[in-house]
Amino acid sequence: MRKIIFKEGMIMLNIGVDVGGTTIKMALVTDQGEITHKWNIPTNTDENGKSIVRDISRSIIQQRAAFNVKDSEIRGVGLGVPGFINVDSGFIYDAVNLGWKNYSIRDELEQLLSLPVVIENDANAAALGEMWLGAGKNAENMVCVTLGTGIGGGIIVNGDILHGISGMAGELGHLTVKHNGGARCNCGKTGCLETISSATGIRRMALEGVNEHSESLLYRLYQKEGDISSENVFNCAEEGDAFALALVDQAAYYLGSALGTLSVVLNPERIIIGGGVSNAGETLTRPLIRYFKASSLPRIVDSCSIDLAKLGNDAGVIGCAWLSMKRLKRNEFVHLSK
Amino acid sequence: MRKIIFKEGMIMLNIGVDVGGTTIKMALVTDQGEITHKWNIPTNTDENGKSIVRDISRSIIQQRAAFNVKDSEIRGVGLGVPGFINVDSGFIYDAVNLGWKNYSIRDELEQLLSLPVVIENDANAAALGEMWLGAGKNAENMVCVTLGTGIGGGIIVNGDILHGISGMAGELGHLTVKHNGGARCNCGKTGCLETISSATGIRRMALEGVNEHSESLLYRLYQKEGDISSENVFNCAEEGDAFALALVDQAAYYLGSALGTLSVVLNPERIIIGGGVSNAGETLTRPLIRYFKASSLPRIVDSCSIDLAKLGNDAGVIGCAWLSMKRLKRNEFVHLSK
Repeated sequence: MRKIIFKEGMIMLNIGVDVGGTTIKMALVTDQGEITHKWNIPTNTDENGKSIVRDISRSIIQQRAAFNVKDSEIRGVGLGVPGFINVDSGFIYDAVNLGWKNYSIRDELEQLLSLPVVIENDANAAALGEMWLGAGKNAENMVCVTLGTGIGGGIIVNGDILHGISGMAGELGHLTVKHNGGARCNCGKTGCLETISSATGIRRMALEGVNEHSESLLYRLYQKEGDISSENVFNCAEEGDAFALALVDQAAYYLGSALGTLSVVLNPERIIIGGGVSNAGETLTRPLIRYFKASSLPRIVDSCSIDLAKLGNDAGVIGCAWLSMKRLKRNEFVHLSK
Repeated sequence: MRKIIFKEGMIMLNIGVDVGGTTIKMALVTDQGEITHKWNIPTNTDENGKSIVRDISRSIIQQRAAFNVKDSEIRGVGLGVPGFINVDSGFIYDAVNLGWKNYSIRDELEQLLSLPVVIENDANAAALGEMWLGAGKNAENMVCVTLGTGIGGGIIVNGDILHGISGMAGELGHLTVKHNGGARCNCGKTGCLETISSATGIRRMALEGVNEHSESLLYRLYQKEGDISSENVFNCAEEGDAFALALVDQAAYYLGSALGTLSVVLNPERIIIGGGVSNAGETLTRPLIRYFKASSLPRIVDSCSIDLAKLGNDAGVIGCAWLSMKRLKRNEFVHLSK
């Protein structure tokens, strides 16, 4: 751990906690955006994740003692969770991967830690992280799309998350992009963006088509391994394999067109692409930007850049620390004193 | 004109000015949303609309004198214009219908009137009008779509217009909804929503298909009149004409699906449909809401209502008065004193 340097006056620390399905990432971050310490604990999803909040609290108390950080130096805790939440009440309606349902997580963690806590959806937290210290630096109007197993989105307007009336704004994975004959999505609809341009979607399209492309590199790979990953698809595309290139083109077409639509709605300064699939870099972004331009407007395209995310897996925990810094600055202890 | 009643303290008046291609609508509106006086003047677009601002100023000065309104009772002027503008600098880049290009309209009108002026795009002003006194009352997160010759949009987030980074947010008429084989739009692209679900789009589709439907009411009407309006299409649909119903279904499908997409991005509390085409009422909204639901998410649909606009042609001028009340409350005379 780097020693915390006290310059003029007190340096306040923010604790970011990014709860994932297998790991909980935590970090201490100063108001100046300096990460002074990072650590992880495993996520225990037994019995509908009932020990998770206590595990988080115990770990924070241990680290605080080990590094001799005083309570008065900590502004509070920002907590990112995968699921449908109510930011104002600190309530989680549903976090499928963790087993939580209708859970007052903020109040419980506040009582355990005697620190103010603010919660946010994990994709939104990642967007805030990129805005603060990553690819979105100084962009107050931006969209962050995370391409992983699913597709998550975070929309930032005037420097903070756009939540909408019931906290569902920016559910970009569930934009209907294929109106006829689309694959079924986990959400119950068909033709969602997530069924095509996520790692899962690209793998699905590859497996569906591979036996009709016995000339392709992907076919040979499939014969050998018995499976195809989205990474395989991008690697084969980079080697010029026609079938793999067609799959990448599909994924880029639907994502690029959806981002074009999004840009006509929001006119953002920056669109940031993150998550595992974004490791494909230009192999993905080159066709994507072409399709983006085709479905946007020149004046909007001219003032918008499309960039790859910079913070990788740290985006969430950094965004959570930002939440502590910004939202608790305004509301510090207000709900505690109620 | 209703007499202005002075209750407790001073009642401040706002002047709304909605500049259209043929008429300029103006109104005096109190901070409480009471319209004390409305009037119109014709729009003189001769010589690239060079006399318009002077005409507006002269008319306001006349009315102010006629009704004995003191300068100190007027908060300021909100001005709605059809075109691309910069709200902060009060500058118009381009207002095709009026002939204006790169014009510091705010500064000119402020000098002529010695009153602070705030400008806004006309579709955004109409959205603000509906939010204040119309179908959007008390909804701080809403979308207003105006279906006329073209399609305009205004997006309201947290009680004010979403402008985006270059003032282009909410250009809903130019969402690409038909990716293959769409008609050419005025903007240069093909397949824009405006080419299908506007009055012009519905008329175009009717004229393109009418000769293949000699059994239809629309065909008979076309033989008689030599033209078909979007109103004709809705009237024939209400009488059960199959061809007209198919045209309405097309318009409703693309608009409903686009609004579904929009709802997944923004999670608005209300979507308001205005403009001439919205006079079709349920003939339009019944199929539209079905397609909207199909491309949205249940949790988003549950918290969103789709309503018809209530203020008709007054929406713009009321929204302009709101601009004077809200934006000038915050910035009154700041730019004048620079």
